[in-house]
Amino acid sequence: MRRISLPRTIWWEDDTVRMIDQTRLPSELSILRIIDHETLCECIKEMRVRGAPAIGAAAAFGLALAAKEYRGASRDGLLTYLGQATRRLRATRPTAVNLSWALNRVLRNVTGTDVDGVRQEIIGEARRIAEEDETVNRRIGEVGSKLLNDGHTVLTHCNAGSLATVYYGTALSPVYHAWEQGRNLSVVVDETRPRLQGVKLTAWELSQVGIPCTVIVDSVAAYYMKRRRVDIVLVGADRIALNGDVANKIGTYSLAIVAKRHGVPFYVAAPTSTIDPEAETGDDIPIEERGANEILFMEGRQIAPRGVGAWNPAFDVTPAELIDGVVSEKGLVNPDQREIERLLRS
Amino acid sequence: MRRISLPRTIWWEDDTVRMIDQTRLPSELSILRIIDHETLCECIKEMRVRGAPAIGAAAAFGLALAAKEYRGASRDGLLTYLGQATRRLRATRPTAVNLSWALNRVLRNVTGTDVDGVRQEIIGEARRIAEEDETVNRRIGEVGSKLLNDGHTVLTHCNAGSLATVYYGTALSPVYHAWEQGRNLSVVVDETRPRLQGVKLTAWELSQVGIPCTVIVDSVAAYYMKRRRVDIVLVGADRIALNGDVANKIGTYSLAIVAKRHGVPFYVAAPTSTIDPEAETGDDIPIEERGANEILFMEGRQIAPRGVGAWNPAFDVTPAELIDGVVSEKGLVNPDQREIERLLRS
Repeated sequence: MRRISLPRTIWWEDDTVRMIDQTRLPSELSILRIIDHETLCECIKEMRVRGAPAIGAAAAFGLALAAKEYRGASRDGLLTYLGQATRRLRATRPTAVNLSWALNRVLRNVTGTDVDGVRQEIIGEARRIAEEDETVNRRIGEVGSKLLNDGHTVLTHCNAGSLATVYYGTALSPVYHAWEQGRNLSVVVDETRPRLQGVKLTAWELSQVGIPCTVIVDSVAAYYMKRRRVDIVLVGADRIALNGDVANKIGTYSLAIVAKRHGVPFYVAAPTSTIDPEAETGDDIPIEERGANEILFMEGRQIAPRGVGAWNPAFDVTPAELIDGVVSEKGLVNPDQREIERLLRS
Repeated sequence: MRRISLPRTIWWEDDTVRMIDQTRLPSELSILRIIDHETLCECIKEMRVRGAPAIGAAAAFGLALAAKEYRGASRDGLLTYLGQATRRLRATRPTAVNLSWALNRVLRNVTGTDVDGVRQEIIGEARRIAEEDETVNRRIGEVGSKLLNDGHTVLTHCNAGSLATVYYGTALSPVYHAWEQGRNLSVVVDETRPRLQGVKLTAWELSQVGIPCTVIVDSVAAYYMKRRRVDIVLVGADRIALNGDVANKIGTYSLAIVAKRHGVPFYVAAPTSTIDPEAETGDDIPIEERGANEILFMEGRQIAPRGVGAWNPAFDVTPAELIDGVVSEKGLVNPDQREIERLLRS
């Protein structure tokens, strides 16, 4: 059986956090070593680590670093310090709900009676979140690979691969699983402006594994569907509302509209930790707007005329009606309130 | 009355062709001086001059240069030389039909009886094509400006402004005319990957004139329409088939699909020289595919992993059913065979 082999995205080692610096790919595979939670917050803001599940693991490790940093002997002092760190971590990026989910989970059941006890609990829970991520993603791969036949062409947007998670990916997980099962697939990759995660990260992952891929500029997807064969669109998610609306990387909404016109099935793959039980619909999801310079500069050079502005939302919301199904570790469901709530409860 | 003031894109001066080098904008307004038709062919291929009407004028001037270059004394020899130049010019870029249209028009009625007579006819006709371009475009502006009210927001793709023509533009012409009439408008500009004509050329033109504009990455257009106000989409055309299908810069098809979903009117503005009487439908229009490096490199740096390929069609075809109207110098028509043929005949 074929096995994919990629470096892990983020892990705990020698009481520090190690992570791939994703802003250096594909030209350099650089591993960062992070010893304090404030540096880790900067790494999330600067997108050295990105992707909803990976951000969740990073936030959990941020609390683990904070627990290590604390120099006092008071349990209450440690809990106060962790509270401050939680607020700082929560403020790094607003859209991926996995961040809050991971912070809440780490702090949920702190029973330790002294500083060291609490510290070990925090670190242990953060490490469990990271370990479980791979298990969950492999299960998403098993579930989603049923949608993929030998010879299929998959179109994906942004990076919802191994680099967006601790390991194995969400939207690419069914592709990896099917490939490991011996099915031959090819992937069409939206370059994903403005940060180019498609061409820089997804194409890198796929070429490391050896799965054929073709990069297109984002606006080609519709014409690609008209002229060539796309069997399925698979994307990840940053937050799923109870009614099945999905926030994901900017451009996903447009892609879902053009897939619908061409009758190409459109699926979202995400762990259930991406469901926000407090978001009734997509309107309840906060959408991060990033700086205009991500658009107006390229590789350090200003490409726009001086004085011209840009609007740079980092995500958009795809309404449930455009989504054929949500692939989770608990099964494949329709994007409607009954099924999404069933996932949360199960 | 307000008047727009922009440099002309291309003109004939001292028996040479002068043109803006559009690959240097917006950082530098560099004027090329071209003395032979082979250099001019390279300028078209390298997109130093681009935009269907500007390519038409450039091709006409290419024949004028060829007529100047010819050193023989034989009228037949000159016509043979012009025939070779025509083939070379025709091969530069395949999609914009204005190129063939201009070449055919320059060679249509050659009546001169000697080399100098033919030469003066060729140069004269090329200059007339360039002069008429502005007249035609100003008329497109008058016709199209009826679609624009004070306070409207126009979304456009690529550059179909003055730089895409000899002067004044096609899709931006109604915007300029309305602005000259005192109406205040704002423009949302798709950056237009991979060559970025939106952010580099359209935003430059609009900021020179003083019309407010906001740049977005191409995949944002749908979300922009959902979240903010877009009153109309205006784009240019590289070739219009008799049934009203329109070939235009890649991404236009996707934009038309998302405009339809949001109920935003979608109009094409182009001179009647953009209609191809030999193309029954969009399927008859040849679509240029350019090199993958336009996508895989950025500002001279490779952004993609080595060994990864890309598909880079420079244009796509938008079916007539997604187009609300075609704005031409002969009026505003529906994109259907009866009306398009009426434009050709009138």
